[in-house]
Amino acid sequence: MSAGNSFGTILKLTLFGESHGEAIGAVIDGFPSQQSVPFHLIEEMIGQRQPAGEQYETSRFETDKVEFLSGIHQEKTLGTPIAFLIRNTDVNPADYQNLHGAFRPGHADYSYYKKYGVLSASGGGRASGRETVARVVAGAFALDFLNQKGIEILSFVSAIGPVTMALTDTFPHADAIKKSRVRCPDEQASKEMEAFLKQVSAGKNSIGGQITTMARGVPAGLGEPVFNKLSARLAQAVFSIPSCRGVWFGDNLVGKEITGIEYNDAMIEESNGPGFASNHSGGIIGGISNGNVLKMHSVFRPASSVGLAQQTVDASGKQAQIVVSGRHDACFVPRAAVVVTSMAAVTIMDLFLQQMMYESEKLL
Amino acid sequence: MSAGNSFGTILKLTLFGESHGEAIGAVIDGFPSQQSVPFHLIEEMIGQRQPAGEQYETSRFETDKVEFLSGIHQEKTLGTPIAFLIRNTDVNPADYQNLHGAFRPGHADYSYYKKYGVLSASGGGRASGRETVARVVAGAFALDFLNQKGIEILSFVSAIGPVTMALTDTFPHADAIKKSRVRCPDEQASKEMEAFLKQVSAGKNSIGGQITTMARGVPAGLGEPVFNKLSARLAQAVFSIPSCRGVWFGDNLVGKEITGIEYNDAMIEESNGPGFASNHSGGIIGGISNGNVLKMHSVFRPASSVGLAQQTVDASGKQAQIVVSGRHDACFVPRAAVVVTSMAAVTIMDLFLQQMMYESEKLL
Amino acid sequence: MSAGNSFGTILKLTLFGESHGEAIGAVIDGFPSQQSVPFHLIEEMIGQRQPAGEQYETSRFETDKVEFLSGIHQEKTLGTPIAFLIRNTDVNPADYQNLHGAFRPGHADYSYYKKYGVLSASGGGRASGRETVARVVAGAFALDFLNQKGIEILSFVSAIGPVTMALTDTFPHADAIKKSRVRCPDEQASKEMEAFLKQVSAGKNSIGGQITTMARGVPAGLGEPVFNKLSARLAQAVFSIPSCRGVWFGDNLVGKEITGIEYNDAMIEESNGPGFASNHSGGIIGGISNGNVLKMHSVFRPASSVGLAQQTVDASGKQAQIVVSGRHDACFVPRAAVVVTSMAAVTIMDLFLQQMMYESEKLL
Amino acid sequence: MSAGNSFGTILKLTLFGESHGEAIGAVIDGFPSQQSVPFHLIEEMIGQRQPAGEQYETSRFETDKVEFLSGIHQEKTLGTPIAFLIRNTDVNPADYQNLHGAFRPGHADYSYYKKYGVLSASGGGRASGRETVARVVAGAFALDFLNQKGIEILSFVSAIGPVTMALTDTFPHADAIKKSRVRCPDEQASKEMEAFLKQVSAGKNSIGGQITTMARGVPAGLGEPVFNKLSARLAQAVFSIPSCRGVWFGDNLVGKEITGIEYNDAMIEESNGPGFASNHSGGIIGGISNGNVLKMHSVFRPASSVGLAQQTVDASGKQAQIVVSGRHDACFVPRAAVVVTSMAAVTIMDLFLQQMMYESEKLL
Repeated sequence: MSAGNSFGTILKLTLFGESHGEAIGAVIDGFPSQQSVPFHLIEEMIGQRQPAGEQYETSRFETDKVEFLSGIHQEKTLGTPIAFLIRNTDVNPADYQNLHGAFRPGHADYSYYKKYGVLSASGGGRASGRETVARVVAGAFALDFLNQKGIEILSFVSAIGPVTMALTDTFPHADAIKKSRVRCPDEQASKEMEAFLKQVSAGKNSIGGQITTMARGVPAGLGEPVFNKLSARLAQAVFSIPSCRGVWFGDNLVGKEITGIEYNDAMIEESNGPGFASNHSGGIIGGISNGNVLKMHSVFRPASSVGLAQQTVDASGKQAQIVVSGRHDACFVPRAAVVVTSMAAVTIMDLFLQQMMYESEKLL
Repeated sequence: MSAGNSFGTILKLTLFGESHGEAIGAVIDGFPSQQSVPFHLIEEMIGQRQPAGEQYETSRFETDKVEFLSGIHQEKTLGTPIAFLIRNTDVNPADYQNLHGAFRPGHADYSYYKKYGVLSASGGGRASGRETVARVVAGAFALDFLNQKGIEILSFVSAIGPVTMALTDTFPHADAIKKSRVRCPDEQASKEMEAFLKQVSAGKNSIGGQITTMARGVPAGLGEPVFNKLSARLAQAVFSIPSCRGVWFGDNLVGKEITGIEYNDAMIEESNGPGFASNHSGGIIGGISNGNVLKMHSVFRPASSVGLAQQTVDASGKQAQIVVSGRHDACFVPRAAVVVTSMAAVTIMDLFLQQMMYESEKLL
Repeated sequence: MSAGNSFGTILKLTLFGESHGEAIGAVIDGFPSQQSVPFHLIEEMIGQRQPAGEQYETSRFETDKVEFLSGIHQEKTLGTPIAFLIRNTDVNPADYQNLHGAFRPGHADYSYYKKYGVLSASGGGRASGRETVARVVAGAFALDFLNQKGIEILSFVSAIGPVTMALTDTFPHADAIKKSRVRCPDEQASKEMEAFLKQVSAGKNSIGGQITTMARGVPAGLGEPVFNKLSARLAQAVFSIPSCRGVWFGDNLVGKEITGIEYNDAMIEESNGPGFASNHSGGIIGGISNGNVLKMHSVFRPASSVGLAQQTVDASGKQAQIVVSGRHDACFVPRAAVVVTSMAAVTIMDLFLQQMMYESEKLL
Repeated sequence: MSAGNSFGTILKLTLFGESHGEAIGAVIDGFPSQQSVPFHLIEEMIGQRQPAGEQYETSRFETDKVEFLSGIHQEKTLGTPIAFLIRNTDVNPADYQNLHGAFRPGHADYSYYKKYGVLSASGGGRASGRETVARVVAGAFALDFLNQKGIEILSFVSAIGPVTMALTDTFPHADAIKKSRVRCPDEQASKEMEAFLKQVSAGKNSIGGQITTMARGVPAGLGEPVFNKLSARLAQAVFSIPSCRGVWFGDNLVGKEITGIEYNDAMIEESNGPGFASNHSGGIIGGISNGNVLKMHSVFRPASSVGLAQQTVDASGKQAQIVVSGRHDACFVPRAAVVVTSMAAVTIMDLFLQQMMYESEKLL
């Protein structure tokens, strides 16, 4: 209820829309004026979020056409709020009516009911992955801006269920990611993931996974102590994506013997300034970027929509059994990669603008 | 620089202070009036944050005496901002002067230098774990408030380096945690952790670990879609703690075959309302609490201060080698547990107050 | 540029749209769920903002049809963000093209040009009174909510140019305001205002005026010290309306000998609790409502669009003379009254929700 | 209660302290690093806020010594939060005990009681003018920063009770203000004000007045549409000062026949860019600064503490009569001038930093 649909300080994103309402959209406030609108990148990124038509992804066909309402004139930004919407064209309320008031396990039905006092596909629809299309449009604006400042951001799938790819410090090729149906740049892992997904899908079940995001060209100094650390803001941004269950940076430490002397990436004198001999910390120290490549991992739960019978209760509190009909993703993680990239871009741009202000200030 | 030192919407925490300056402190705004000041709990929680005097913890002796400046009258809150400070009594600048302007690897020296243009123990001191004492005082206020509403929060160490304890859904006993020097309620794991830490300490090295936080009594409905999800706000809060590198909720999925049908905690009819047959999601669905026990895990890197020689560069960009003298924690993770509890309490109370407003509203 | 298009803490309003772009609209976040959408009041209030067809008001015909995008299901609010838009149907860019790049005096052209680096009717269109239609829709939601809690808000015109009406503490009749073409409940003053406006209009000139807003039923205790005082938030809200030049509360003191002993409204014992013998302070003491009738006055400058030749410079800095063609309001103050009511309602509801939370809290 | 004690986006000020508690203070967050601490200006501005020892000002002797807690190293700012406190040294609770629980008319006693449920000198002490000393310290930091960017801000008394000075567009001399005991640069008006104040003081009564603030050197482009207009933010900032009852900009229009053609300050070609033939709008058009001299007026009510018997009720709701003993200001308006300057400086600096960011951005 209360005002949780906005994010950011200088660049402020406000999202709206339910998956079963009229439209999904957003207002981007604080975006600099006189910037070209990245129509091509918006389309490309929306495409990355759409299902590939495979059986392990939702069969709902989404033609996500963005309608801009404000903030743009002659394909340039005005500096005023950029508002846009994407209409929901493929809503089938019948999919929800056969639930007879039962809470779908794993969905937000019950927690939203307790929060708002309403059991409604439209209300719970706020918690749907559908809303992420608005994030991707906003993300395209931010990513295009950052690209022009020499900052690149890429996300790829690094684990699906038990299949993981070995992580290295090498910045991935966008092409290797695009070639993979599961958006995993490691060819062998990609094949295994596909095979595993076919199995899960055949069982009408679903599975989660992990997305790794890398950014290079991020200047040292981004992030604001204490609560707006780059890591803390990225974590909030990525955890706001539906189904995100974990975020970490650099090299994972649980159950490993990485000691301080290793983790303290040694610094080395380089021709263009200080550099690092390693990158265990993933480009962030003390919550502030250090100029090294940013490495973030985010973990997503299995899709809550499965085609199997489930035990639950209904709004009157009685035991019930349901089978959720309609569209199912066996695994939405490949589609979520561009959403993580989008949220990373929005977050980094916000902190970039703040730091740019102080750096310009110093010159005066 | 820019205003990142505040957290929260209704209950707003503003922190200040460098580890090598005059004092550390905070302003707590929005705390309800007419509440008793939890002096005893404040003292107890500050004690949990202090070193136990063992060789694997810092030998700096901290007498953290809280001086209240405002917001309190006759041991009750007034509703006005509660400001307090804790003086830094054991500052030894000499520990820092022998660094000769070299950036300490793993510390925030370099990223703060790039951010603020200052190389100063006082500036970098903002990134020190010292600031967490103010969080603990604020956390005690929030925890005491929540306790009175039937909400309990406990944190314990679930991993140190390669030593991990098996996680269950059983709510731990506070006594089992207190008995353990490393704040691990599993006796066997606790012993192994202690043994491992002695080794690390002997090698003048350091090690990281994981803290698990559980909360029971959290009512369903807390958290505000979309960016102020309970998970997203807890993540921001905990990532703001120095050296936090990861946060996740419920059961970890990476490299495991937990499918949707399992992860979708089935719901069961119980005498006092809907319940859950399992708790893979850790009490949060769709970013909103569902009334189940909250389970959060946070990962911390090894302490960056080690007693070994390290390669680095100095502010002029030249290669250098340093040995950081002074106090070293082989592992601060046991001390950090109460800090995580504190940040969890502050976050949950903020969202609790927001939800309480809407629930009171409905009754009108 | 930066994120100035949002207002409020619990109830957060985000506005978007340029007068010469696609649409004007807003996102209302934090509005409680399960409330009826006040369609009738929205229509009525939009009507009050529209020109009456008189020669001293703009001849632009606006059919302001509200399209809801989210947050509503079956005519009830969901608790999720309520987004809506109103299309701009009567845009005539030709009115602006004959300006040949000259800054219109009194308009935001020059200050927006210096801010955004763009000279554009669309950009400056953000500063147009056109955007207030979105405030009125949001205001209708807030006013309807407050009405149900026993709070009434009315605004009327208390001065136009040199014609002023005598202010009393009597709460006005809505009918007396509606009957007056200039929305002034004092019959004699209303006539004089109308006569004066005809003169101004005949001279192709414009004139400003004052709006008085009164609210009764506002409970004591609203407003948050220090920066979110009821007076401070109302002032920010009303000054955000285009062309607002002044806001004051209670009885105006400049050039008058009202002493402390008079201004200190004496308190009197009443059957239903403490009351006041007078109301010089206009219902606010120490920035917090005291239960007395709220009295606020806001002053608006003359419309900047006049039909006379004006000296100015163009974007190249050269002296120029322009006559602004197109639609002119001799006085928009009567139309602005409902906008002030709207902003007052949004502000009071935000602070009402906050205070309601603490009062519910006390009961626990 | 809820978090109203912070102000600002980039430069964020958080105030704390009750007039009868331990200390008054603030945290300034977002202030750029490497700036000299303006110790001299702080002292000078605190001096301007202190009583001149005259009978029409409070006889409470305040030695306001600022103790810095953080954010400063070797007399330079670090970029981290600057926290400071000023102890309350002259608290005499006996002044309040003889009120026997009666609400002092004109004070915040009753509205605070309704808000917080507490009747306490300490609680109501949050609403005391005492807290403004922290604003002055913060204001000195901001003013010093702005002075270095060529921005000057001056405030003076332009009315006390019925005595007003004629306002012109001439920027006043700081010396003429300093020479006047009532801080009015018009010699004749100053004498009349003094004479009038002696009368009021002799009658144990109090009187209000008006402060005019002018700023030159403010670049065009400051202020963020829509809710963070320069005018709207200044209004919020100044209304947050205790006893402020009105704020307006430029030339006051109520009851005057200033038409649009006059008010639309004509623009003229000048050697260094566009200028204005007049300044009716006081340097702000469309809520954004236009480079002209900023002119703001703020109106303050008479001090609520008077030495006369007053009718009131007590906390049990019974009729009572009280005489408030202790210190009385016949008129605090001269002392408030530096507080208005301080709030103007904090507000302008915040919006200056935001605009500087976008302007630096354009150059990239």
